[in-house]
Amino acid sequence: MSILVVGSVAFDSVETPFGRVDNVLGGSATYFSTSASFFTDVNLVAVVGEDFPQDHIDFLKSRNIDLRGLTRGQGKTFHWKGRYGYDLNEAQTLETHLNVFETFSPRIPDEYAGADFLFLANIDPELQMEVLDQVHRPRIVACDTMNFWISSKPEALKKVIERVDIFIINEGEARQLSGEANLVKAARKLLGYGVKTLIVKRGEYGVLMFTPTSIFSAPAYPLEEVFDPTGAGDTFAGGFMGYLANTGDSSEEGIRQAIIFGSVMASFNVEDFSLNRLKSLEYREIEDRYRSFKAMTHFQGLPLAVTEL
Amino acid sequence: MSILVVGSVAFDSVETPFGRVDNVLGGSATYFSTSASFFTDVNLVAVVGEDFPQDHIDFLKSRNIDLRGLTRGQGKTFHWKGRYGYDLNEAQTLETHLNVFETFSPRIPDEYAGADFLFLANIDPELQMEVLDQVHRPRIVACDTMNFWISSKPEALKKVIERVDIFIINEGEARQLSGEANLVKAARKLLGYGVKTLIVKRGEYGVLMFTPTSIFSAPAYPLEEVFDPTGAGDTFAGGFMGYLANTGDSSEEGIRQAIIFGSVMASFNVEDFSLNRLKSLEYREIEDRYRSFKAMTHFQGLPLAVTEL
Repeated sequence: MSILVVGSVAFDSVETPFGRVDNVLGGSATYFSTSASFFTDVNLVAVVGEDFPQDHIDFLKSRNIDLRGLTRGQGKTFHWKGRYGYDLNEAQTLETHLNVFETFSPRIPDEYAGADFLFLANIDPELQMEVLDQVHRPRIVACDTMNFWISSKPEALKKVIERVDIFIINEGEARQLSGEANLVKAARKLLGYGVKTLIVKRGEYGVLMFTPTSIFSAPAYPLEEVFDPTGAGDTFAGGFMGYLANTGDSSEEGIRQAIIFGSVMASFNVEDFSLNRLKSLEYREIEDRYRSFKAMTHFQGLPLAVTEL
Repeated sequence: MSILVVGSVAFDSVETPFGRVDNVLGGSATYFSTSASFFTDVNLVAVVGEDFPQDHIDFLKSRNIDLRGLTRGQGKTFHWKGRYGYDLNEAQTLETHLNVFETFSPRIPDEYAGADFLFLANIDPELQMEVLDQVHRPRIVACDTMNFWISSKPEALKKVIERVDIFIINEGEARQLSGEANLVKAARKLLGYGVKTLIVKRGEYGVLMFTPTSIFSAPAYPLEEVFDPTGAGDTFAGGFMGYLANTGDSSEEGIRQAIIFGSVMASFNVEDFSLNRLKSLEYREIEDRYRSFKAMTHFQGLPLAVTEL
């Protein structure tokens, strides 16, 4: 089944302790689509400016990403500039130039309106709501957000959350949105807003999934070189939703596997700047790393050998 | 098989966002022994002052902890005073009164010198070395330390590490001792000091185990109320070593199970001040929580259903 994603396609300028790049391909929808494209067909809705080069278009097409929803606006492409210190869990935003994104109003092409899987990447919750109003009952809707929308439009965001199945958010944002310091309490509160599955991203500490009746804990892959965390969250979401769309299995077991595939994709993405690592990635590497996640978390069930004293 | 532990028995005064207690039972050897006592016999070597009440002695005896190695010095019992903010991963030490601990020189009773399992709790590495010199080839030696010894006696500490099988340390300390910001690199360096198994504690993010050929990731139990993290690390070590001593299985699989038992014990301990939760704990609760850890981390191996595009 195919996925529809609405988000940003952007230029990023990024500085980490290991190097810097300027005006490279980035954006939430870009990372998401490229990651998901390893598992399923992706339809992308976003806007770029007049300066967006054919090379990047060609790359996205080479990943079989359907670009009929990618419009070109007058002006420049959205540009984000950020920096990471040795704590690679936290980006410091240096500059944000919305450019053509400032007046972006997502129009979902008719051919996409029946999408089975919809991912609302991190954009203004009012735009996320506009997207929800244009699609016909997708099987699974997931959405992401960021601290900026939590503080500026909490009510609009809560209305979006009520209409999605899976809410993907990072740890600090979960605490911010719920007003609870304890993560389990925060999760309970967010589930109370009506979402069925809450996925809390914790950077190098992995992911926690909460449902009303269960918790699933997935580690991050321990890497010797984390080069650039930009796009890790969207790459996670792309692998996660891509796998769900591939199998159509949205049982709890299916969602757990999808979380591991998402974690696998994110672990590759942070190994290089921009989408460089995903560009060279082969499916067999994804399978190998899935097996590593399994090996890394394995332990036997309750042993019988323990003798109570 | 029995365990020998050398460490501190202390009074703690602790403030958390949820309350405060003064002069309650604490100390690394106390938490370790009580936790391990659910799995095996424990012999304790430590010193207390003239003010240490019979009640606490009676409690330790009620857990079948052998106290022939607990001496009473002239003066007061070691006293630690600390505070936790909402980030319960980090204690702020307000006061440390070593008292009788200042002149502590561990003497291992002859009956203990043949111990199969030895835990060197966090004390001066020179004292840890003295203990190693008094025991006859234990099967497994594990040790803990703290930032204070890493900065004040790094060379003595490295000599201890060369002689232990399992080194248990927290994340920040692993970075500090290795001088590496990246945890995988830090672990590789510490394994290079000659230790076979490195266990890195990450508070609410669980535990990572490194061996020269594998990594194991265990989550912490997500708790709605973390009341007081004091002693969590030693309670972890107690459950971990206690289970190893119970089964005698020091294969990688055995060590992984032991890590889960350690995590289970730590998860109970933080639910209340001092050792209050361990005092009321029943073995069936330990088994239930072990099952919860298994359920919380379960996902299927590489699915066959994924179709490469």
